[in-house]
Amino acid sequence: MSKISVAVLGATGMIGQRFIQMLEDHPWFEIEGLYASERSNGKRLGDVLKVRDHEYLDDTMDRRIETMDIAKISKNCRIAFSGIPSDLAGPTETELAQAGVAVFTNAGSHRMDAHVPIIIPEVNPAQMASIRDQPTYSETGGYIVTNANCSSTGIAAPLHAINQAFGLKQVFVSTYQALSGAGYPGVPSLDAVGNVVPFISHEEEKMETELAKMLGTYEDGEFRYAGFKVMANCARVPVVDGHLESLVLDMEQQPTLDELSACLTGFRGEPQRLGLPSAPKQPIIVRTEDNRPQPVFDAMAGRPARARGMAVTIGRLRQSNGYYKAFAMSHNTLRGGAGGSVLNAELAKATGIL
Amino acid sequence: MSKISVAVLGATGMIGQRFIQMLEDHPWFEIEGLYASERSNGKRLGDVLKVRDHEYLDDTMDRRIETMDIAKISKNCRIAFSGIPSDLAGPTETELAQAGVAVFTNAGSHRMDAHVPIIIPEVNPAQMASIRDQPTYSETGGYIVTNANCSSTGIAAPLHAINQAFGLKQVFVSTYQALSGAGYPGVPSLDAVGNVVPFISHEEEKMETELAKMLGTYEDGEFRYAGFKVMANCARVPVVDGHLESLVLDMEQQPTLDELSACLTGFRGEPQRLGLPSAPKQPIIVRTEDNRPQPVFDAMAGRPARARGMAVTIGRLRQSNGYYKAFAMSHNTLRGGAGGSVLNAELAKATGIL
Amino acid sequence: MSKISVAVLGATGMIGQRFIQMLEDHPWFEIEGLYASERSNGKRLGDVLKVRDHEYLDDTMDRRIETMDIAKISKNCRIAFSGIPSDLAGPTETELAQAGVAVFTNAGSHRMDAHVPIIIPEVNPAQMASIRDQPTYSETGGYIVTNANCSSTGIAAPLHAINQAFGLKQVFVSTYQALSGAGYPGVPSLDAVGNVVPFISHEEEKMETELAKMLGTYEDGEFRYAGFKVMANCARVPVVDGHLESLVLDMEQQPTLDELSACLTGFRGEPQRLGLPSAPKQPIIVRTEDNRPQPVFDAMAGRPARARGMAVTIGRLRQSNGYYKAFAMSHNTLRGGAGGSVLNAELAKATGIL
Amino acid sequence: MSKISVAVLGATGMIGQRFIQMLEDHPWFEIEGLYASERSNGKRLGDVLKVRDHEYLDDTMDRRIETMDIAKISKNCRIAFSGIPSDLAGPTETELAQAGVAVFTNAGSHRMDAHVPIIIPEVNPAQMASIRDQPTYSETGGYIVTNANCSSTGIAAPLHAINQAFGLKQVFVSTYQALSGAGYPGVPSLDAVGNVVPFISHEEEKMETELAKMLGTYEDGEFRYAGFKVMANCARVPVVDGHLESLVLDMEQQPTLDELSACLTGFRGEPQRLGLPSAPKQPIIVRTEDNRPQPVFDAMAGRPARARGMAVTIGRLRQSNGYYKAFAMSHNTLRGGAGGSVLNAELAKATGIL
Repeated sequence: MSKISVAVLGATGMIGQRFIQMLEDHPWFEIEGLYASERSNGKRLGDVLKVRDHEYLDDTMDRRIETMDIAKISKNCRIAFSGIPSDLAGPTETELAQAGVAVFTNAGSHRMDAHVPIIIPEVNPAQMASIRDQPTYSETGGYIVTNANCSSTGIAAPLHAINQAFGLKQVFVSTYQALSGAGYPGVPSLDAVGNVVPFISHEEEKMETELAKMLGTYEDGEFRYAGFKVMANCARVPVVDGHLESLVLDMEQQPTLDELSACLTGFRGEPQRLGLPSAPKQPIIVRTEDNRPQPVFDAMAGRPARARGMAVTIGRLRQSNGYYKAFAMSHNTLRGGAGGSVLNAELAKATGIL
Repeated sequence: MSKISVAVLGATGMIGQRFIQMLEDHPWFEIEGLYASERSNGKRLGDVLKVRDHEYLDDTMDRRIETMDIAKISKNCRIAFSGIPSDLAGPTETELAQAGVAVFTNAGSHRMDAHVPIIIPEVNPAQMASIRDQPTYSETGGYIVTNANCSSTGIAAPLHAINQAFGLKQVFVSTYQALSGAGYPGVPSLDAVGNVVPFISHEEEKMETELAKMLGTYEDGEFRYAGFKVMANCARVPVVDGHLESLVLDMEQQPTLDELSACLTGFRGEPQRLGLPSAPKQPIIVRTEDNRPQPVFDAMAGRPARARGMAVTIGRLRQSNGYYKAFAMSHNTLRGGAGGSVLNAELAKATGIL
Repeated sequence: MSKISVAVLGATGMIGQRFIQMLEDHPWFEIEGLYASERSNGKRLGDVLKVRDHEYLDDTMDRRIETMDIAKISKNCRIAFSGIPSDLAGPTETELAQAGVAVFTNAGSHRMDAHVPIIIPEVNPAQMASIRDQPTYSETGGYIVTNANCSSTGIAAPLHAINQAFGLKQVFVSTYQALSGAGYPGVPSLDAVGNVVPFISHEEEKMETELAKMLGTYEDGEFRYAGFKVMANCARVPVVDGHLESLVLDMEQQPTLDELSACLTGFRGEPQRLGLPSAPKQPIIVRTEDNRPQPVFDAMAGRPARARGMAVTIGRLRQSNGYYKAFAMSHNTLRGGAGGSVLNAELAKATGIL
Repeated sequence: MSKISVAVLGATGMIGQRFIQMLEDHPWFEIEGLYASERSNGKRLGDVLKVRDHEYLDDTMDRRIETMDIAKISKNCRIAFSGIPSDLAGPTETELAQAGVAVFTNAGSHRMDAHVPIIIPEVNPAQMASIRDQPTYSETGGYIVTNANCSSTGIAAPLHAINQAFGLKQVFVSTYQALSGAGYPGVPSLDAVGNVVPFISHEEEKMETELAKMLGTYEDGEFRYAGFKVMANCARVPVVDGHLESLVLDMEQQPTLDELSACLTGFRGEPQRLGLPSAPKQPIIVRTEDNRPQPVFDAMAGRPARARGMAVTIGRLRQSNGYYKAFAMSHNTLRGGAGGSVLNAELAKATGIL
């Protein structure tokens, strides 16, 4: 089988480089185009990264990609992975879809569009059907699939597993989000060192709507939101990679903690059933230690090697006043960023949409 | 008026040094005794601190106290401020009370004892009456008054103001706690740098019980707990001083955000009415910026100079799904530690219990 | 005595705010004008700071200054303190001098100009005479005085004391520089958290020339550089305020460590003799502990209160292979920034140049 | 070829775990024994790590080793890798050598012993001959080989390459050392966050003697020290892994910077010639960017995969006043710890001493 030709948009940014990392030696996809902002046109990726202050992935890049030229965006590839900043991504992604490209994007621009799904393959693979209602799909075969916001992603699979098993009524979530979530240069160091910033623009609103959209359904051409409520408080902490999130859950049923733990540990989704290349064998890992999950230990959870950073880790399961409490941890630029979209494209391929 | 003679217990520790800082040039109290662990006996405070790795307050210490000898605990003073670790404090504090000393302690050992109050003067000054039911009070005049756990303290005054005005049903709180809360040496740096540890031993249990005790009443010789529920998730972040806490509040009434803000800003308690020396003029400060409170800016809130670090700062007041959301910030070793007990002693003095 | 009217240029930046902090309640100077970039014109200082992410000095600002309008630069004031970025400062400062203003600047633009001195009052007060050879001085009474680069400042006084007493041949210096030295937003947090960046643009060149200029003389209308050599390696560490510097010194004489320590401890300069308001009583503090100086303890060294952050701390005096080794510590935006220029203006005033 | 049976001493510590990481799937060695302090005896390694707060290498450990029991030290293995703290290692290591074991140790206890070499295979493989003069060698075949202190290791290969090519007279070095160098719990977080500690016990003395011993010779049963002088200033910075070191070099010859760079880039030693499994293909990597090396990018330098963290990175080559300046970077617990001793054992094996 020859590989499917893919392009990376925003290739010089933090998410773009994570796309490149996830796509190196990918069994199904092969990078054929690198796109970035205009001032990088015609330059080799390796040279552009060399003059930046922050080659985030430095060492991991293979020679072939390092020497590729950054080009004007072409519409010849079958797939475009988009790491373009959300405020710029919208029109470019639309044009590509109109030209017949399948766009898998980390940008938030289209997440709330009528027939554009926010997909986490373990959670809502069926919502992928919505792309058939995007006008471009019938015209050119192009479409847009988004991955969720990084904080929403970090708890979506556990919430989905719990919702299915025990019914979810309310979610109280506070985030301890990593600096890499703001890109580069992102957060000034004087705001980060020895400090916490209790504000991330639009993050709480995203969490309060995206989760309900994802855990809902797509029926009769419309997204029906799930009925539970989310109350989110979001803050930035001086951690490089990996979002930690505290949870208080209000459930319909009252399982024991052992039942809850078994539900999470045993959860498997479409990616696991289909054996998608970037799918972690166990998508939700439950830690039983007193003091886990922690960013330094658990951000990169996930096996096999290709799925490093793609599992979600849950710990400190407790009960209090009829509620359930826990901490969740996930990698914000892998599972919650580029890795999410790569997995979405793998799902599309495995289910014949690509 | 001659000053009241006081002793500091645990004088070489982090809280002990904060006691010394709060008591320097105090208008009512004068340090006459310094006590610490046995190995420091007979040494000058300044010399003991010199051989430690961490003279936390270094520069602020006045000459007279620096040259005082650390002594065996004597029972001659009227007041003992206790910064002894909780696992050691219990018996010592009991003995002192039996000997007629008024003990104001940061240790948790006696917080749940039958007639021992946890006092925050802005919140529950009336519970100070419970000390009259401590057996030692009638025998020798000695008694024990505790200050609350640092995380509970940081939100007690705002919750009290809100409870009085609008009725409080449920509190969902997640903490972003500073490293100094664990004392010295405390948290290993490899656990702290670029990391968050989602566990602080017994902290969540303390928050879920202490707040209800404090916001309740003392009647007929018993503490009656307040009726609202607290669900707490506690985590340690790489911040030196100042606990940040995210809040979701379930209230009986539904004030506007302006009404809520006015309620907090306008709140005054006994310390303000009595003009206690360490009382902040405005005990709850509401910030209207997008991204406050933050440890680096707001931990030391409180005026005048003697009350630095004694105010609580609230910000990001929002509504969501019928709940109210906010972030609160307070200094964990000043208002939430030594400063809390100094203010308690000031209340005792001003109300004739001392 | 009525106060001298002063302006602060670059008032909304980090150094500008430190100028405001140093000038509040100043016994000799009174802020009458605040200048910043064009987009702030006509706005109140407090409002401009409110929309920035980083009100560095937040709490310390007095009401009068907070409500002052930022204006177009006027040339009516007697003194201008300049915190303008070096790449923009040059022409503005020249114009002000031409208009008769005495400019005391933290910018590097004019440091190497023919008759412009780099002044540290403890080190080279006599070089202040060079301003009389600036053409503007005779024409309008205006002139430019610069303070040294922050890293040079941190070791200038100790090197001067040693050079006078024992003769200095070579200085090998490595810096551990604070993040605030890069201003705001400055260093991205992803470069700072858990990292060291071994490069600060032009910093090493500045250290290798400024120290020689300052420790030299001004004779016959020219600066004669001191004869010793400086070899500098500069790096940025994740510290908020305070530059640490390691030193290996090659001296002509071989004093004992006690003699060396006594030379530093006993050193006093013009600011001490003249009793300048912002002068630390003891400009060089020698610490004898194993592990000092450290940023968290020693950056703010200096008494009385107005001179906090204006002393230099030296520690770990050792000998090795005929060389002397030490670590030095100073506050980079106080002594090494705004405070340096304020002290220069005080020197000018006290010596009749103002 | 059957693998050589090895034991890891101090298996539960930070260096011990790095030994386990380096020895997993090792082509020549197989872990047969795990030893630690008495309280761990009889427990499975995975269980001991589970109750500690800091499973440093968590995820990387293979199942077989995780389930091995920690045992009393046996003397049956051919090789013992020692990660025992230096203050305890001495007698144990001596006993093992007396029993016929080849001890490769990270501890400093025996580094200055008469016939005990400090080996870095790229630098002084010939000094391995000294073990034949250890009394145990002829008696039982046992001996002790040490790796250098982590800070010495980080610059030994570059200094050796330069010394051979251009002659080295003096080395002025300042270190920016990582927290992991102090083990776990090691440095308290309150000393680390936002701070630098300019003191590491005995570190400077080690650098000033070990480098001269290693770059010298072993002749007539004695170590002859190299003639150059080292002046070291050592400090701890808030970095997790990877020591950065600033260098000023005084050389006999005056090569161009290009010649110097070529000398370093082209350097190869015995491990490269012998193709040792843990040897980096290129032991010294020269970076030409303005701002490298940095801990986050360069600590793990070294290829192939088994040699990650085993290369030294040099950058910012400059000249100043007849001296050469540079920054060097190396991984302190891999190349500068466990990895160094593993490479030493590989050298011993490849050269027939094992």
